[in-house]
Amino acid sequence: MLKFEILFQSKKSSARLGRLHTPHGIVDTPGFIFCGTKANVKGVTMAQVEEAGSQIVLANTYHLMLQPGSELIKNAGGLHKFTGWNKPMFTDSGGFQVFSLGYGSVGSEIKGAKQLESKKTLLKLTEDGAQFKSYIDGKTVMLTPELSMKIQMDLGADIIVCFDECAPYHINKIYTTNAMEKSKRWAKRCLDVFKSQGDGSQALLAVIQGGVFEELREESANFANENDFDGFAIGGSLGVTKSQMYEVVEMTSKMLDKSRYVHLLGIGGIEDIFNGVKSGIDTFDCVAPTRIARHGAAIVKKKYLDDAVHKHLNLNRTIFSHDFSPISPDCDCYTCKNLSKSYIHHLLKAKEVLAGTLISIHNIRTMNRLMEDIRAQLATDSLEVAYHEWCEA
Amino acid sequence: MLKFEILFQSKKSSARLGRLHTPHGIVDTPGFIFCGTKANVKGVTMAQVEEAGSQIVLANTYHLMLQPGSELIKNAGGLHKFTGWNKPMFTDSGGFQVFSLGYGSVGSEIKGAKQLESKKTLLKLTEDGAQFKSYIDGKTVMLTPELSMKIQMDLGADIIVCFDECAPYHINKIYTTNAMEKSKRWAKRCLDVFKSQGDGSQALLAVIQGGVFEELREESANFANENDFDGFAIGGSLGVTKSQMYEVVEMTSKMLDKSRYVHLLGIGGIEDIFNGVKSGIDTFDCVAPTRIARHGAAIVKKKYLDDAVHKHLNLNRTIFSHDFSPISPDCDCYTCKNLSKSYIHHLLKAKEVLAGTLISIHNIRTMNRLMEDIRAQLATDSLEVAYHEWCEA
Repeated sequence: MLKFEILFQSKKSSARLGRLHTPHGIVDTPGFIFCGTKANVKGVTMAQVEEAGSQIVLANTYHLMLQPGSELIKNAGGLHKFTGWNKPMFTDSGGFQVFSLGYGSVGSEIKGAKQLESKKTLLKLTEDGAQFKSYIDGKTVMLTPELSMKIQMDLGADIIVCFDECAPYHINKIYTTNAMEKSKRWAKRCLDVFKSQGDGSQALLAVIQGGVFEELREESANFANENDFDGFAIGGSLGVTKSQMYEVVEMTSKMLDKSRYVHLLGIGGIEDIFNGVKSGIDTFDCVAPTRIARHGAAIVKKKYLDDAVHKHLNLNRTIFSHDFSPISPDCDCYTCKNLSKSYIHHLLKAKEVLAGTLISIHNIRTMNRLMEDIRAQLATDSLEVAYHEWCEA
Repeated sequence: MLKFEILFQSKKSSARLGRLHTPHGIVDTPGFIFCGTKANVKGVTMAQVEEAGSQIVLANTYHLMLQPGSELIKNAGGLHKFTGWNKPMFTDSGGFQVFSLGYGSVGSEIKGAKQLESKKTLLKLTEDGAQFKSYIDGKTVMLTPELSMKIQMDLGADIIVCFDECAPYHINKIYTTNAMEKSKRWAKRCLDVFKSQGDGSQALLAVIQGGVFEELREESANFANENDFDGFAIGGSLGVTKSQMYEVVEMTSKMLDKSRYVHLLGIGGIEDIFNGVKSGIDTFDCVAPTRIARHGAAIVKKKYLDDAVHKHLNLNRTIFSHDFSPISPDCDCYTCKNLSKSYIHHLLKAKEVLAGTLISIHNIRTMNRLMEDIRAQLATDSLEVAYHEWCEA
């Protein structure tokens, strides 16, 4: 059960201010969804995630179906009870991981990054579903639309997603067409299971596929608009460059029923978020804030970067060893209120995991402050003020 | 500046209830000091350490002098400001680490554990001090009583300790005598520097050496009693068995000026604490609560252990995979109030560092609850009630 309320529509762009009402509370939009991949946000407690102002956390169906299994989480009382996070939750369908691990590259390709070497685990793709090898125990697993729905119902997140075939960029238009068509048939099967077996507490999002091809995105969007989905998630390949990504997102977003909620899967750079918001995206998710934190990188406004080269503050760098100021002078997170760059640099050098925790707390709070600023400025249709504050030196 | 107030003296044993007044607040005794080795309690924020009811944290002179260096911490405003811990702090002298790493075994020998292989780093031991190789950069470092004092004054903990030679158990009585005599001379040098160069805000403890030999402990204790130390730390070899340890602690404690504060270095098992308290020990420190947590072991009362074999709950074990109850039914820590054994088992299997954090929070809270119970029962001279609650099945 999801109610999406639009509070304000910008006159300058497709940006909008909204509110998602879920059984576990409200998500203000535009909002950021933090990744709790294996039922935890790496290195931080849910109390710390909440203290940093977060409203919603995502968990991965793919990882949880393999370990500890969705039955166990169902028996534990669902993901909320299992993880101790009593606010809104989101699960993806498992499709992205099956196919990105399967092709060994789609994950990075979709984000326009370079191709990485990795073991291919996808065994067989049929009309029924996708067969792959578990990275936990090597067992063969068949993930179908019906199973993805069953697992996501077991997990009990407030917002769940249809199982789709996620085609990589290097695949040609014919393959992308077929994948999009198959995703439509799979989405229909998901919707059937969801309507007949769901308990009415969850919301189901259709994934909009079609790669960089306008007519394919159109067909995918039309299908989603015509069916009773609670909202949309823009997935699939968004091209290889940032500008292509922005074009594909804008083009796709325009095709969607404006009254429904729109999520952009797996994108969370600050510039990307401003572009997405202007295209009408309501929520974003990305592993980056906590992933880069574990490697020592802190997210700050552009004006607080120490040079034009680095995108983040890399606290491993020796220049921070004697810097007794907080990561960001305007940040109100636990880390910035109590600790210095010098201290975190010391913990990184000493290989203390607390360094990753402290930077994660900062990065989570920073993404929430970004979204708070975006919403505050959007309320007076002044998104450019927030953009200036965050993205200009 | 340390004021030690004795609130109650047991009639049944040497146990006493007290209160340490330091410039950063109060420590109720008997109390437990948590190890923040490299200026952090591994895997937990100082806010979490405080939330778990802790009153005092220890940091290691040896590790901090090598990285990031005491000058840097002094420039940061001292350990309290550097770490964000605004309550009482304790630093050791560095001696234990120099000698335990130096002999490659003294650490485990002192605790009666088996000898472990490790690279010997002690290069030269003279009347002046101990020369060793830095494990950070291989540089030769000379640690003297004067340098240990200077470093501990830079760090700025509320309670600091004299630099001593920590002789292992396998060393003969002549060596132990010489080490004790040298420790006395070094302690005199420490006291001189402390009195002439200190700012009066810190308290200095003498280390009582002498191994398992009564007359050597007596000589060491007499020296400490006769000089103006703020309190005592019982160090050196306590023998190889638990019963020998209890004997040495009791014998040594009896020799000390009763009006002053007594710390027992590096001991923190629950049985050991009850025995120490009965011998008049006021505070304990041990890395175990957070170290074993990182390996999946949770500290619980004996009656909550699942069998007679295990000393702790090893949450890696498969029997906990579907156990949706908290680690301990009577615990009020964040972990027990919000999460199950099953969830933590899952995090351990998934190799998530959050598992170590959550168990550390529990173990810290548990040690504090133990000390709270000990103090509560001691107030009515009923220590045996607390013992029964914690140590009997």
